[in-house]
Amino acid sequence: MPKVNLEDKIKEIEQPWSPIEVARANDQVVRMALVKGEYHWHKHSNEDELFYVLKGSIVIQIENHPNIDLHEGKLAVIPKGVEHCPKSSEEAYILMFEPYSLRSGGD
Amino acid sequence: MPKVNLEDKIKEIEQPWSPIEVARANDQVVRMALVKGEYHWHKHSNEDELFYVLKGSIVIQIENHPNIDLHEGKLAVIPKGVEHCPKSSEEAYILMFEPYSLRSGGD
Repeated sequence: MPKVNLEDKIKEIEQPWSPIEVARANDQVVRMALVKGEYHWHKHSNEDELFYVLKGSIVIQIENHPNIDLHEGKLAVIPKGVEHCPKSSEEAYILMFEPYSLRSGGD
Repeated sequence: MPKVNLEDKIKEIEQPWSPIEVARANDQVVRMALVKGEYHWHKHSNEDELFYVLKGSIVIQIENHPNIDLHEGKLAVIPKGVEHCPKSSEEAYILMFEPYSLRSGGD
């Protein structure tokens, strides 16, 4: 039963938009990503996606809805089927809690 | 799509060992609890449980294994079926990521 230090995990990340696996439990996974710049619009047809901001701030753009400004220590759940596109002008580190089946780039 | 501020959630907690729901996604739930003193030994037969320390430090006692000392910013997964008992001499706030079906007190 290994411990995971999130500060150490941050050091493993070399580039934005390339999530690394932090932990697995049941059929779920915790992934960490560096957010910098803008991702692409996408959705996950079958999976909700939970975003938690560990460091910095991000904006999650949502189709036909106001943006979600998500600051450090805050979380939000993007329901399945909802088109979204995260972005950040500064570097930010996030955790995503999601089914292992979820493909970060969308489907 | 509401945002959740974990600092605000901390203020909602009035007593130890009484988890509150922070978010739900898919068939999973994020629960927050105040840890102070010692819980009881228990296990979850069918669910892994992910512990993340938001504030302070906890110790997770594990049957037939060394204790897991879990400090702020660290996480660990207790596999299904493993008897465990969290404790903390000082107040600590944790998040638990787990299937909604999981009963915090064990089964």
